[in-house]
Amino acid sequence: MARTEISTMGEFGLIKHLTKEMKPVQPSTKKAVGDDCAVMDYNQIKNEKLKIKNASDVRVLMTTDMLLEGIHFNLEYVPLKHLGYKAAVVNFSDIYAMNGTPTQITVSLGISKRFSVEDIEELYSGIRLACERYGVDIVGGDTCASMTGLTISITCLGVAKEEDIVYRNGAKLNDLICVSGNLGTAYMGLQLLERERIAHESTDRFADRTQNTDLISAFEGREYLLERQLKPEARRDILVSLRKAGVKPTAMMDVSDGLSSELMHICSQSGVGCCIYEDKLPIDYEAAALAEEMNLNIVTCALNGGEDYELLFTCSLDDYEKLIPVEDLYIIGHITKPEYGCNLIGRNGEELPLKAQGWNAFSRSATKS
Amino acid sequence: MARTEISTMGEFGLIKHLTKEMKPVQPSTKKAVGDDCAVMDYNQIKNEKLKIKNASDVRVLMTTDMLLEGIHFNLEYVPLKHLGYKAAVVNFSDIYAMNGTPTQITVSLGISKRFSVEDIEELYSGIRLACERYGVDIVGGDTCASMTGLTISITCLGVAKEEDIVYRNGAKLNDLICVSGNLGTAYMGLQLLERERIAHESTDRFADRTQNTDLISAFEGREYLLERQLKPEARRDILVSLRKAGVKPTAMMDVSDGLSSELMHICSQSGVGCCIYEDKLPIDYEAAALAEEMNLNIVTCALNGGEDYELLFTCSLDDYEKLIPVEDLYIIGHITKPEYGCNLIGRNGEELPLKAQGWNAFSRSATKS
Repeated sequence: MARTEISTMGEFGLIKHLTKEMKPVQPSTKKAVGDDCAVMDYNQIKNEKLKIKNASDVRVLMTTDMLLEGIHFNLEYVPLKHLGYKAAVVNFSDIYAMNGTPTQITVSLGISKRFSVEDIEELYSGIRLACERYGVDIVGGDTCASMTGLTISITCLGVAKEEDIVYRNGAKLNDLICVSGNLGTAYMGLQLLERERIAHESTDRFADRTQNTDLISAFEGREYLLERQLKPEARRDILVSLRKAGVKPTAMMDVSDGLSSELMHICSQSGVGCCIYEDKLPIDYEAAALAEEMNLNIVTCALNGGEDYELLFTCSLDDYEKLIPVEDLYIIGHITKPEYGCNLIGRNGEELPLKAQGWNAFSRSATKS
Repeated sequence: MARTEISTMGEFGLIKHLTKEMKPVQPSTKKAVGDDCAVMDYNQIKNEKLKIKNASDVRVLMTTDMLLEGIHFNLEYVPLKHLGYKAAVVNFSDIYAMNGTPTQITVSLGISKRFSVEDIEELYSGIRLACERYGVDIVGGDTCASMTGLTISITCLGVAKEEDIVYRNGAKLNDLICVSGNLGTAYMGLQLLERERIAHESTDRFADRTQNTDLISAFEGREYLLERQLKPEARRDILVSLRKAGVKPTAMMDVSDGLSSELMHICSQSGVGCCIYEDKLPIDYEAAALAEEMNLNIVTCALNGGEDYELLFTCSLDDYEKLIPVEDLYIIGHITKPEYGCNLIGRNGEELPLKAQGWNAFSRSATKS
């Protein structure tokens, strides 16, 4: 494969090259890449799906995520295109978690000399694919050399009607606790990738994926787990379903650090307690099988695994009937008085306090070195 | 000095700790740190200075900058507080370069174990100071571990009235070319710091600045050069003066990569050429003296030095009389037909084509290793 050194293009050349074919799709994007700033006109929101009619109802949402090589991803098994896709989608997920719609992103990259122009094209193609699928414009960014690994920092803007925004602090006593999709699957995908990486470390066959029959068979039938880890999706579809069903959550977050940690955030910010049931937790059967094989407790993985990017929300008990027909949505418990705390009711009725032992990059790095 | 390990706080604890005393000052900031996203209401712009009366006139500006240790800064001589200040100000400068007003930033940090909580507080205190001075709110961010050095990624939002925005592509034939402040000074500050760093490398006295009398005397009388490199300001004051004088630039950029490079951007995007005069370039006498001492050509430094964060703009010849009373502003040339190209007229009348040999992080890194 051709390898073009980034230094032959320079920073401006590289940005120009990466963004040359992009055409904004959002009516609010007035000026994308090419000036000191991007320019947005949020009066130009005529979003029929969102039923935004008056510009004065529009609120602008902003979120940012930084991904660092060696901490958030390992390029031994994460393809660059998938990485780009995921880096964009995790930002969209934060916007959806406010019940908003992502509209624009900026992409900053720190790139070491190890990477060629073709590598960065690959990364960018993943970012672009995510943007196309979710209708988001890339409006700017910064591209610079790095002394070490790859750094990706994406900031996302979105819009929502004032009345539609869902914060973390709105959960009320007796509200239902709901979660989309399944939990712990992305974590099991990571365990699988790590296990195979370690197994193949000595033989160095891991890098050459296409000819690695051992690896292909290790992953066979487990593509879903890998996909959940390598190429997660943001649950825009759940928000569409909820809107159709006429349900507005009272509090909402996306599950990036793990169910326990996120639920405890909602409870502490809302001043309430919660009770969730072990037998209600949505768990994928492939994930459960692999956990069994690897001698891991799948419930612990579901509670603390992180990176599922599912939506976790609370809503009024009155909405119970409306929630039932919504696909891929699970009611896992309810909101209690604050003095009850945050608890999991086990299969045998035992009460276990939740712990926020979600993914912590600082302690994780501490154990690594 | 006390050293608190970041792992004792975790990511959420650290963000909470760093942002606990912040109170938004912008009326558009509805929700800052603490949820999945920040929320802004740009209908709440009642900015009397900007004379924005109708929300429908408001445009949102967005810019982002990434700073990487070893590429953009060297912590051997850059104090963390100054670094934080500069990281914020360079973003504000991009917003001013569109004739806008910065309003909100998000701050993402990648932090290696070398840094303590106190170090990050120091960095953040600089970011906060810049935000206070320029009236900008910190509305979010991401803080994570890094395997190597320090990474800072800041994204800034701002506002402007549609009719006030100045792009790079509006320069017209015969327009005057103006620049604020002086050029090449930040670059000479960097040369001074680098010279002293190298001189003191073997004795390792550089780190202990307070007791280093050699270093203090090397820097004496040159504080301005250091300040221009370590703690630049964004030229908000120039925009205020231009508004008062009733002048709207036709094209504008801030000088981050060097005058030649920026001017060539304006010319290529506007489809024009330019002619600037060597004897009109504003040069600081301390910078000139140090260049002489270091055997550098100060004109080359002024043309290609970068990091001055001055405003470079073009405006109509009709505005000439209005520009004269504006303080700290210099007319350095004029816009020509495109076929003339971009040229510098030397002191003896010789014509030299400008070259965009501005600061290029990729080639710089290439020469370093």
